[in-house]
Amino acid sequence: MGSLQILPETLEVLRNHKVLREKMIFGHVDPPIMVECDFKNGSWQTPQLVPYHNLSLDPATKVFHYAQGIFEGMKAYYVDEKGPYLFRPEDNYNRFIKSSNRLDIPEIPKDFFLDSINEFVKHSIPYIPNESRHSLYLRPFIIATENGLGASSAIEFKFIIIGKVSKPYLEENESAAVYLERNYSRVGRGCTGSAKAISNYASGMLIDRVAKENGYKITLWLDSSEGRYIEELSGMNFFCVVEDIIYTPLLNDSILPGITRDSVITLARDMGYQVQEKDIEINELTLLHWGECSEMFACGTTATVMPLAYLGEKDGTKHTPHLEIGPVTEKLQKALLAIQEGRAEDRYGWVTEVS
Amino acid sequence: MGSLQILPETLEVLRNHKVLREKMIFGHVDPPIMVECDFKNGSWQTPQLVPYHNLSLDPATKVFHYAQGIFEGMKAYYVDEKGPYLFRPEDNYNRFIKSSNRLDIPEIPKDFFLDSINEFVKHSIPYIPNESRHSLYLRPFIIATENGLGASSAIEFKFIIIGKVSKPYLEENESAAVYLERNYSRVGRGCTGSAKAISNYASGMLIDRVAKENGYKITLWLDSSEGRYIEELSGMNFFCVVEDIIYTPLLNDSILPGITRDSVITLARDMGYQVQEKDIEINELTLLHWGECSEMFACGTTATVMPLAYLGEKDGTKHTPHLEIGPVTEKLQKALLAIQEGRAEDRYGWVTEVS
Repeated sequence: MGSLQILPETLEVLRNHKVLREKMIFGHVDPPIMVECDFKNGSWQTPQLVPYHNLSLDPATKVFHYAQGIFEGMKAYYVDEKGPYLFRPEDNYNRFIKSSNRLDIPEIPKDFFLDSINEFVKHSIPYIPNESRHSLYLRPFIIATENGLGASSAIEFKFIIIGKVSKPYLEENESAAVYLERNYSRVGRGCTGSAKAISNYASGMLIDRVAKENGYKITLWLDSSEGRYIEELSGMNFFCVVEDIIYTPLLNDSILPGITRDSVITLARDMGYQVQEKDIEINELTLLHWGECSEMFACGTTATVMPLAYLGEKDGTKHTPHLEIGPVTEKLQKALLAIQEGRAEDRYGWVTEVS
Repeated sequence: MGSLQILPETLEVLRNHKVLREKMIFGHVDPPIMVECDFKNGSWQTPQLVPYHNLSLDPATKVFHYAQGIFEGMKAYYVDEKGPYLFRPEDNYNRFIKSSNRLDIPEIPKDFFLDSINEFVKHSIPYIPNESRHSLYLRPFIIATENGLGASSAIEFKFIIIGKVSKPYLEENESAAVYLERNYSRVGRGCTGSAKAISNYASGMLIDRVAKENGYKITLWLDSSEGRYIEELSGMNFFCVVEDIIYTPLLNDSILPGITRDSVITLARDMGYQVQEKDIEINELTLLHWGECSEMFACGTTATVMPLAYLGEKDGTKHTPHLEIGPVTEKLQKALLAIQEGRAEDRYGWVTEVS
């Protein structure tokens, strides 16, 4: 007996939608359902699986004014009709709770979160693409729904899960050009950077857009205090390979502790690589004080393991160019995806089959 | 001919609401109207004065996920049925544009903004309290309304103005106890702190709530990099008086350039006070390296000029206690409010009468 209530109209919508879907020839369709659960009067209500619908919110709703909100990103894989598989969902839950605590949002019970994810995916199986590197992206999130302009923590919230069909982030064999941002920052020390807070993304909107217009795929952020140490890319963690050692920035309160990051470190060590988490000075890398950087990659839920082509400065200078995916990156990318898609043995207990 | 369209149903709602209002004996009622204007297909549509209504938004709307949004705070005064008066509305517009630029939000035309504010206030006259220190608080804001989970700048936005009846922030003769936060920060260098971005408020939610539970009214934030310099209070700028000189932190990219702050500096100088904008080390103040601090106050649209009682540390230490409002604070508070309420001569061209 799960803790999620499934409304009869939800099953009706799924039945009707299926007929529509079968008439479609091209393209993928997102699941026409969502999970919704309100926090009010001091407690989380029963989560419900309901038809996908617009939210009706007062213009004075707090999330519109003070950005009190958090989210998670997860993927369900269903390649060769095996699965569906979730990747480390308990770790997403644990991080969701850490984000809740930092943003002063009440903790949602573990079974509410996990049962909701499970049932959402179970009812979305026809919508998960049957193709390697494709998946159903899941977005659990909580927003402050209290109506009021007082700039204080809300007492009403809404937990929602929606799912979107996800295609590969890059073409196969494509590498991402990285814009190295020297002036603006993503988040400061003592702020919300190590939580998955919606507020962490606002500062980068302008910089990411200009970077994309200049041919870059993504931005690399340095620490806000000194502009000296590498923190993370927009929504992804950073790795580089220098003289056969894999480096990634040591976690601090302005770097998101990526679940993919942690998985990559574990996989790399088990493959026999030396992995060092350390504060990485941007000058160590760009001025090669450190030795030749042979590979760079990013990782995260959306892009899994993504090769990086070079770091580009505002004046056009390109650092550490690598036109093709490097051997370490490729090995990690393939190994991780094979586990996530249920094609390789999972020695870590990372993969959960939705039943 | 203004640039705002007034829907017939808006006038109908105002007529009907008036009857309801007259039946009420206690309390104030917020205006049942709002201004709404969409940005789509690359341009701002015609703003409309419409009945107050909920927004219907897809759960994948970008503001829920990446906090791309900005706002302004303004007040309309109508004391003794004189006015209504707006205070420096063009400065609010100019800051709104600076916030737009930093958050990658398209600039709304000046006449759209000012005509909308003007007409909103004109139609809200019966809702503005006829009492000194009371006002109609106006909240113009823009949120990213594009539907999509890609963590990139939106291409669709909504501009809204709502109004809420505003009572005095403190009782007369009350002073605010201030919690001095040493670990967490509001925003970092290079982030969005000098823009009025919704993302600036998320980091403080937890700290403000705990501070309030411990008897404080507001939090004082230090710089994110070193925790050494005073930046601002939650939503207000900081001032202190040391040996007859008025000090306030020098603006930087993590301090909001308050319009009330600027007005206070101007008024104080015209009263003959010496005002210095400088980086203020918290230790200069708390360890009295600097001399005896005789007064502290905060200022902003909501609280106008607010006396501060003391700075409290986590361990209970209280710095620079002042139980009553100081003479400089009181003089500035009275002078500013008299101008805002149209009771004193406005030598600065700050006050605009809504006609």
